[in-house]
Amino acid sequence: MQLNAGCELHFNAKETTPLILMLRPRSGDGQWIIKEEYHITPVVNVTEFTDMYGNLCQRVIAPEGPFSINFSATVQTADDIDVVLDAPYTPVENLPDEVLHYTLPSRYCQSDMQGQLAADITKDSMPGYGQVEAIRSWIHSNIKYQYGTSNASTSAVDTANSRVGVCRDYTHLGISLCRALNIPARMVVGYLYKLDPMDMHAWFEAYVDGRWYTFDATQDKPRGNRITVAYGRDAADVAFTTQFGDMELNTMSVWVNAVDEAEAEKKAPEPATVPDASGSTSQTTTAA
Amino acid sequence: MQLNAGCELHFNAKETTPLILMLRPRSGDGQWIIKEEYHITPVVNVTEFTDMYGNLCQRVIAPEGPFSINFSATVQTADDIDVVLDAPYTPVENLPDEVLHYTLPSRYCQSDMQGQLAADITKDSMPGYGQVEAIRSWIHSNIKYQYGTSNASTSAVDTANSRVGVCRDYTHLGISLCRALNIPARMVVGYLYKLDPMDMHAWFEAYVDGRWYTFDATQDKPRGNRITVAYGRDAADVAFTTQFGDMELNTMSVWVNAVDEAEAEKKAPEPATVPDASGSTSQTTTAA
Amino acid sequence: MQLNAGCELHFNAKETTPLILMLRPRSGDGQWIIKEEYHITPVVNVTEFTDMYGNLCQRVIAPEGPFSINFSATVQTADDIDVVLDAPYTPVENLPDEVLHYTLPSRYCQSDMQGQLAADITKDSMPGYGQVEAIRSWIHSNIKYQYGTSNASTSAVDTANSRVGVCRDYTHLGISLCRALNIPARMVVGYLYKLDPMDMHAWFEAYVDGRWYTFDATQDKPRGNRITVAYGRDAADVAFTTQFGDMELNTMSVWVNAVDEAEAEKKAPEPATVPDASGSTSQTTTAA
Amino acid sequence: MQLNAGCELHFNAKETTPLILMLRPRSGDGQWIIKEEYHITPVVNVTEFTDMYGNLCQRVIAPEGPFSINFSATVQTADDIDVVLDAPYTPVENLPDEVLHYTLPSRYCQSDMQGQLAADITKDSMPGYGQVEAIRSWIHSNIKYQYGTSNASTSAVDTANSRVGVCRDYTHLGISLCRALNIPARMVVGYLYKLDPMDMHAWFEAYVDGRWYTFDATQDKPRGNRITVAYGRDAADVAFTTQFGDMELNTMSVWVNAVDEAEAEKKAPEPATVPDASGSTSQTTTAA
Repeated sequence: MQLNAGCELHFNAKETTPLILMLRPRSGDGQWIIKEEYHITPVVNVTEFTDMYGNLCQRVIAPEGPFSINFSATVQTADDIDVVLDAPYTPVENLPDEVLHYTLPSRYCQSDMQGQLAADITKDSMPGYGQVEAIRSWIHSNIKYQYGTSNASTSAVDTANSRVGVCRDYTHLGISLCRALNIPARMVVGYLYKLDPMDMHAWFEAYVDGRWYTFDATQDKPRGNRITVAYGRDAADVAFTTQFGDMELNTMSVWVNAVDEAEAEKKAPEPATVPDASGSTSQTTTAA
Repeated sequence: MQLNAGCELHFNAKETTPLILMLRPRSGDGQWIIKEEYHITPVVNVTEFTDMYGNLCQRVIAPEGPFSINFSATVQTADDIDVVLDAPYTPVENLPDEVLHYTLPSRYCQSDMQGQLAADITKDSMPGYGQVEAIRSWIHSNIKYQYGTSNASTSAVDTANSRVGVCRDYTHLGISLCRALNIPARMVVGYLYKLDPMDMHAWFEAYVDGRWYTFDATQDKPRGNRITVAYGRDAADVAFTTQFGDMELNTMSVWVNAVDEAEAEKKAPEPATVPDASGSTSQTTTAA
Repeated sequence: MQLNAGCELHFNAKETTPLILMLRPRSGDGQWIIKEEYHITPVVNVTEFTDMYGNLCQRVIAPEGPFSINFSATVQTADDIDVVLDAPYTPVENLPDEVLHYTLPSRYCQSDMQGQLAADITKDSMPGYGQVEAIRSWIHSNIKYQYGTSNASTSAVDTANSRVGVCRDYTHLGISLCRALNIPARMVVGYLYKLDPMDMHAWFEAYVDGRWYTFDATQDKPRGNRITVAYGRDAADVAFTTQFGDMELNTMSVWVNAVDEAEAEKKAPEPATVPDASGSTSQTTTAA
Repeated sequence: MQLNAGCELHFNAKETTPLILMLRPRSGDGQWIIKEEYHITPVVNVTEFTDMYGNLCQRVIAPEGPFSINFSATVQTADDIDVVLDAPYTPVENLPDEVLHYTLPSRYCQSDMQGQLAADITKDSMPGYGQVEAIRSWIHSNIKYQYGTSNASTSAVDTANSRVGVCRDYTHLGISLCRALNIPARMVVGYLYKLDPMDMHAWFEAYVDGRWYTFDATQDKPRGNRITVAYGRDAADVAFTTQFGDMELNTMSVWVNAVDEAEAEKKAPEPATVPDASGSTSQTTTAA
């Protein structure tokens, strides 16, 4: 299905503020960017680079005052995600070199501390896809979805304790539990059609049977029509925006429409949540 | 100036034919892609990768029959290129590691055979920008611009002999003569506003005084408003399309409009030249 | 000074165990590998790859039974490290693209949680080198060096609380506090001449005034004669060995000798500490 | 078999001369570097980087006067190379992204001009390994091996005409003919045990049935016990040394000994050929 997805962010910069944006999806990996627009107001110089995960990152310096970003893309997406319940575990010795680092613990996924929980959840599962699905399903059933319960410092260990969180927390916990079993796992941020409530989204991929599979613990069944914007080890790597200065995000809108529908009614995007400012000198906007 | 540039290609495939396309410019390096559209008809699966020079490459398989590609982009470009006549030569020992390979000879730029010519042309020039400008100016004055005089096998040595060619040949000769002086040089393909006749274009960059400068031997004075689509060592690296099968390019249109102008009159793109088929089993569409 | 440095590890594998080793230093960055030997017993197939930080990693599969590794290298090292007390802070907008990710929090360096501590420690310091040196000095004075007080899960936040640790913990805390100030910082593991007690070592580098500087919070004054083996965001990235199976490290020896001294007396290497097994299914050997 | 291989080069620099060396083999790809030594006299600062093909390159600046390099390595090598006569052709659409550029013409391998010759030689061959072996065998039978018949500018087209050359020319022709059939091919430089006369050597690899296979047109049957030092598109990419200044190579010795044999008799390395100086301002030492 062709989707038109995008976001609009309105900031207010109290001082000149460098930003790093990660908003532009790439073609490949099952998605084709047919059309895209990227407006930054006021007009400033922008440079773009590819980070170590292959994500396109934009660097800008926001002058003092209002600063807004509008990105939209029309993307051909897959209607379904692959579900292969008996896809076997890939032994570490068979993992490609470039996948190995996705077995390591990271800021929000302390897999070195969750071996016991991972073992308990998957004790009756088939090694591989079966284990990951058991993890995904356990999170879906045991973690309560609730806005405002977590922040920029909340990690998988925190979420395993509190049993509450948003998509970002579900994802961190899923990744951490996979890695605790030596299954490579990575965070994906992007858009999901008919996500309710609509927002930027996060899910995870696990590497079994020689390839990456998509898992989303926030959903009750497998769903396609996703647009991947960026991959990373965890949320530290894939913030949509990172501001290095005193800058406030006032409103943020996110939309994902089927292209026919989009053309039928040009409805105004609805405002989505504005994340709390973190306590650090750099602030990030991440998936929820 | 904001430019809207694009191309439309109509092929006829006599058999299923894999293609590699290099049509999507990247933001960065002084240009910002505000908007882009990329249509391939019929709809086929497309994957995208980044080659060793950082260019975005699209891979598709064209089914038998008509096959067309329409790419367009709205791009913020620089109105001028930097001209610094006294920018000094960068000694080899000070070149960044990743620039070194641009001193080596390549398929169409046999710099190892053009040391004498390069020395003759630049004997009165200041080392660095001065040498490159002497080369550019010599080519502009001594090579006759004429379509149909060169083909996919024509090299810098051929052009130095024949004294005739198109933008691709001018560029190869400029690159080869720079490298013969140990000045790194690379090919750029893309769009130039008000190029006459309009077509995909090629020019070169030389590395002096610690950075890349733009040179275009087809023009009589420095001109900005360029859109870079790809970089490479020479035309072997940066064909806009490479077809691995029996496939004919019937028509190709190229346009570059100032955005205001573009909005004022939505004029139909004019057909540009269709390159001759090369004798090889893979054919390429390159700049002229 | 030319140093001969190396290590010898004796494992016992209770099952076939894949390992990733990071033991081979690279030339460049101020060190030149004149000579090296790398023996693995029994003889097994080894492959080598370069990770995302440029480190050379070796992959092997240890058969059941005793397994040992002996690596040694003769390296030309710098006798001093650069100390430039007034090297200024590099604003984020001027950081090279590839350095940016060293400002992000990571597994053991939760910089997002240590902004206040970093601000307190550096409140009287000059931005840049001065801040980093204030951090280094504060750690040296306030953290007690003691073996056995930390483990594979201990993070910078833990160390800031417990005020005790080994070189790895000193390093994590230094990195985390730098990043909290938006100063890029990375972990270095390797060898230090005359380290007492001798062991694999860890320190950190911070990026100020457009380059990396070396800092070592375990030492009371700046010391050169270091051999870098690997760089990373924190210890998760730069374990000397990572074992994915039931495998015990029985003994580990480490030595660093001045080459003249080394030739004069071929003294047997002294056994160093054997790290505790972590609770995870993969175990690592890291610096202490 | 374990081999000890190395080379010793004695230059005389008439001026300060930057050099790029490509002498250090990497582990991986079926070879394991057990031991290596790398001496440069006089002692100068050396930096090392990895080029776009993954080769380790050393940069040095030779002062005026005598300058010598001695490199040696003890390497575990495979006794045989894989020969799979019916390994099928890999269609272009199935080639990995990073292999595609090995189908392109390059400085010394003008595959765009050798389609007819390639078709003639392989007209009775099975697509894939069969074609490459037909090419290898045709070169072996039809090109006369003779020192001093080619130089730094000799290309595959030249060799197809002259029917004479050395290992470098055999290799270029093999690569060019493969690429003319859309079979990816790359140059390998390194050492071959019992090469007669002993020298640095060059051969090629072709990509069929999803992997690289080794081919050597200078030999009458498949032979293993090779040490790969570097890969590239052709000799332009993989010169053992490249000098950017007035510097003379006086003597060059190359040796490859079985380790037992090497230990039994420490015989002096025999001098090998000294390549002619090319006419360019940069000179290279390449395989013969």
